[in-house]
Amino acid sequence: MGVGLLGGSIGLGLKSAGTDCKITGYGHRAATLQSALQIGAIDIAADNAAQAVAEADLVILCTPVGIFPSLIEHLRDKLRPGCILTDVGSTKRSIVRLAAEFLPSSVHFIGSHPMAGSEKRGVEYARADLFRNARCILTPTATTDQAVIDAVGGFWKILGMRLTILSPDYHDQLLADVSHLPHTLAAALVAMQEDAALSLSGKGFLDTTRIAGGDGPLWRDILLDNADNMRASLARLRQTLSHLESLLEPSHGDELAQWLTAAAARREHWLQHKLRDVTPD
Amino acid sequence: MGVGLLGGSIGLGLKSAGTDCKITGYGHRAATLQSALQIGAIDIAADNAAQAVAEADLVILCTPVGIFPSLIEHLRDKLRPGCILTDVGSTKRSIVRLAAEFLPSSVHFIGSHPMAGSEKRGVEYARADLFRNARCILTPTATTDQAVIDAVGGFWKILGMRLTILSPDYHDQLLADVSHLPHTLAAALVAMQEDAALSLSGKGFLDTTRIAGGDGPLWRDILLDNADNMRASLARLRQTLSHLESLLEPSHGDELAQWLTAAAARREHWLQHKLRDVTPD
Repeated sequence: MGVGLLGGSIGLGLKSAGTDCKITGYGHRAATLQSALQIGAIDIAADNAAQAVAEADLVILCTPVGIFPSLIEHLRDKLRPGCILTDVGSTKRSIVRLAAEFLPSSVHFIGSHPMAGSEKRGVEYARADLFRNARCILTPTATTDQAVIDAVGGFWKILGMRLTILSPDYHDQLLADVSHLPHTLAAALVAMQEDAALSLSGKGFLDTTRIAGGDGPLWRDILLDNADNMRASLARLRQTLSHLESLLEPSHGDELAQWLTAAAARREHWLQHKLRDVTPD
Repeated sequence: MGVGLLGGSIGLGLKSAGTDCKITGYGHRAATLQSALQIGAIDIAADNAAQAVAEADLVILCTPVGIFPSLIEHLRDKLRPGCILTDVGSTKRSIVRLAAEFLPSSVHFIGSHPMAGSEKRGVEYARADLFRNARCILTPTATTDQAVIDAVGGFWKILGMRLTILSPDYHDQLLADVSHLPHTLAAALVAMQEDAALSLSGKGFLDTTRIAGGDGPLWRDILLDNADNMRASLARLRQTLSHLESLLEPSHGDELAQWLTAAAARREHWLQHKLRDVTPD
């Protein structure tokens, strides 16, 4: 469901991994489905959602988060018994809640958040290796079968992903801090500037604000879906900035330097951690 | 004065441009001066600051901003009459004030801010093309001779830089917005995170916080020197974030999407502007 950057890359990745599964794609734009067929990301372009999922063992929702409610409503009585449903959304509480509330008990749902992507959208940017060495967070609940966790975890591993298991609540809280807030800050940093300042912007500024280049409506959906955690993250950022502002005095120079050095060292520590993470075994 | 990344790159750039000027380097570490000699960034390693500047037509201060007061104090009676003095500091009001207050009238000062660099420091990272196509801001005052502006502007042009003229006040105000605040925010974004969140950080987060990897004491000096503008920039950022927070309601979804889209479009506009800027003529 949804054959854009992520959906298309899943198809290409499965083909590249040599799996013999049959991939059906469905999306509301015919031209996109044709592109997906042409690049070999899907085997079949379904005419409608019901046809797309009728015989599917695994259905993956790859649409923007904001479309999930209507999509679940639409699919609920069309999924075959025993089917596993997952998604690629950047927030997890709402989709997990929707699935628990509306899906028949014969259908198994588990939330996935494959942390790969780009500020580019569309199947034309799809790549077989988009997910390789990236992290996929699975968000099972107390009622999720271990077999379903294993099946969907195994699926993402075929695409080269590393798995992390988190509760939907904790996922959304951590992602607000490490993804949604940084995105918002990047946009705020651009929004607050005068043109005269932007005309002086260098590589540092453009790097810092790269993630502000994402799609507005897509991010609107994410931020609204995670608004409570966003408010908490913003509050903690404000505290951090207030602390920093209190150090902008010559008498606090040593503490300011230590604070800056500690932040640099902490980033370097995690950067090295990530680099080790993605080193092929 | 100071043969690190910037001082070393100036030397290499001058040699690479084929100039026949004689470059004397001075710094407080003998090993650094030896490295600078070895890579050909300087012709002469001076034993002391007085010797370094005694016969110089142009003296460039390439030390951290925090050392400027003691350096100006030390050099004031050692510069030869007619000598031009400039610097590469990231803040301009204080050095311009120091120069006006302490230098003899026989010495010509103009502030320079070549906007090139890296989060790496040290002459071992010096490159002949570090300044190529980057911007250099000159900050003359009402008393600066046009001949001095032309001479120092011409000097940076030899290294391939594009010139912008700003008052010291306006320079420091704009740089707080477009450089010092983003640096601080990157550090704050790292500082506020829990380890569990950092363990999930992806490429977006690492890009956003790349500039947090700078040198603590160096940035301490910059932030303290520009503390008033930093406070003003932080205040404007807070206003922007408050506005954003007010949009985190479903009823403001359209406005939120528009705000995000506008920020993305604005960044893209300036990115394209920069790309055109650095396209060779």
